[in-house]
Amino acid sequence: MDTQENERPLVLVHCLPPFKLPRQFEFEERLLAQFRLLDHPFDSLEQTQSFLSRHAESIRALISVGPSPISAEFLHLLPRLELIVAASAGLDRVDLPECRRRGIIVTNASLAFCEDAADCAVGLLIDVLRRISAADRFVRGGLWPVKEDYPLGFKLGGKRVGIVGLGHIGSEIAKRLAAFGCNIAYNSRKQKPSVTFPFYANVRELAANSDVLVLCCALTGETHHIVNKDVMTTLGKEGVIINVGRGALIDEKEMVQLLVQGELGGAGLDVFEKEPDVPKELFALDNVVLSPHRAVLTPESFELLMELVINNLETFFSNKPLLSVVSNK
Amino acid sequence: MDTQENERPLVLVHCLPPFKLPRQFEFEERLLAQFRLLDHPFDSLEQTQSFLSRHAESIRALISVGPSPISAEFLHLLPRLELIVAASAGLDRVDLPECRRRGIIVTNASLAFCEDAADCAVGLLIDVLRRISAADRFVRGGLWPVKEDYPLGFKLGGKRVGIVGLGHIGSEIAKRLAAFGCNIAYNSRKQKPSVTFPFYANVRELAANSDVLVLCCALTGETHHIVNKDVMTTLGKEGVIINVGRGALIDEKEMVQLLVQGELGGAGLDVFEKEPDVPKELFALDNVVLSPHRAVLTPESFELLMELVINNLETFFSNKPLLSVVSNK
Repeated sequence: MDTQENERPLVLVHCLPPFKLPRQFEFEERLLAQFRLLDHPFDSLEQTQSFLSRHAESIRALISVGPSPISAEFLHLLPRLELIVAASAGLDRVDLPECRRRGIIVTNASLAFCEDAADCAVGLLIDVLRRISAADRFVRGGLWPVKEDYPLGFKLGGKRVGIVGLGHIGSEIAKRLAAFGCNIAYNSRKQKPSVTFPFYANVRELAANSDVLVLCCALTGETHHIVNKDVMTTLGKEGVIINVGRGALIDEKEMVQLLVQGELGGAGLDVFEKEPDVPKELFALDNVVLSPHRAVLTPESFELLMELVINNLETFFSNKPLLSVVSNK
Repeated sequence: MDTQENERPLVLVHCLPPFKLPRQFEFEERLLAQFRLLDHPFDSLEQTQSFLSRHAESIRALISVGPSPISAEFLHLLPRLELIVAASAGLDRVDLPECRRRGIIVTNASLAFCEDAADCAVGLLIDVLRRISAADRFVRGGLWPVKEDYPLGFKLGGKRVGIVGLGHIGSEIAKRLAAFGCNIAYNSRKQKPSVTFPFYANVRELAANSDVLVLCCALTGETHHIVNKDVMTTLGKEGVIINVGRGALIDEKEMVQLLVQGELGGAGLDVFEKEPDVPKELFALDNVVLSPHRAVLTPESFELLMELVINNLETFFSNKPLLSVVSNK
């Protein structure tokens, strides 16, 4: 290792369980051009601890890829940590209160992913209302020539859509759905002064005034099961739920029961409480569209993601203001 | 039959083979409140001819519902016909040159259906690019827990979308896709002075400058197989075709072959050349979304359709200017 090698800043790559970005992106190669990467071993907790204790004094930044938790205990092993660069929009795996206490800055990737996530949410909504996946199943099943009763769907225009979480993703969803003639309202931690859409301080009230709920807020202690049975029965028999946030935003067990009983109109779900397990009762329903947590994965967004991650690390190591810092209050 | 009964204008209902609108809409009841309806028998050509010859002198208007052709021969049986009110967006079943020759006015229903058709086109496009129906199949098939290689889709934003036919439907599609950050261009019979999107005088040139072609033009002698093998190979291996117009706008046999060979990137198809028959080779492809000619069917649009049909008949019989007259040049 020569001197120049040592001059590249050190970055810990945290991705347990092992999670590989698709090879084609050469993410590692691009990071290595500017940083030294520390990949710690995961064979045992002892190994991890001993490895980190050897490097802890020089680790100021880490990249968090994939679903492995960044707990208070783990953070305790990294006393010099100042920055967590998350390669994801959601941060429910990171102990944000501990980061706040320690003054550790956290950046996320919703800037890179917000358009994909919004496209997916709108796609799921059109799909549920207009029954596109069900229609595809109908045609592939050879039923078109033999059955005439393919059910009508519902029109998007004029639907009252309540967006839960009007951040980067929610704002992109609103922009798209406005072009379809939907009437947008929203719920978030607090009303946004620059936004003219009607604001509802709680999700039940939003549901009472919506035909569709779109969930794209962060999963936190406060938003866990924010869509409970009460909210869903308020949304009603013709109500539709779209979830591109996190599975645990919805009380999934209750949702499944309401869908099966016809007490909820439909659902487009990219996320689930116990991924990759999806409640099997949903497989029989034509008013449900199921997607394997892929709302934010396109090659074009990976390109943006890599730029964002590298940019955040560069600006940090050159003491400039960071992009996409997560408000951590 | 009393005098008042005779004062309601007579309208021929032309819907062979029998095609019923869903009962819930009470279309017939609403028409009967204002018009006398003539439902002619379809048991044999002789019966039709004899029936029509008895009523021909009093038939000035007909409603065309469903796919039954209105040929020059049929029109010959109705020498006093002045108006055809079509309950559809497409008019390929009507002999428009003969109508022009005879001075018969033709109205269509694309005003009622344009938003639904546009929603469906956008839904199919998101579905193909982001593989939503394929994802739904993947999850329902129980593959998520066992396979990790669910393929990435493609991002909508930045895609160059070429719209073939920028009428009511095409304009609504453009409005929606602009909100997704797509770059719109179009082809139509002639350039539209009020439109700023780039215009291409032929479809091949449009294909050469597009990632996606969306077909929503009328099917006529000129547009039959407007998307031929040459256009599709020009669109290329990553190119996507969305068709909410008519099946015969595309050379279906060539399209199927190109899709099977991987020479075309994907397709979202609501219409086919020989409905309800769909080429079985398509059933095996994950980059194809199939829909049973349902782009324009929602209850909300039926309501608009009925209003439009009744309004056209009312204005005709009171000698006022008609809505939704089809340019017939």
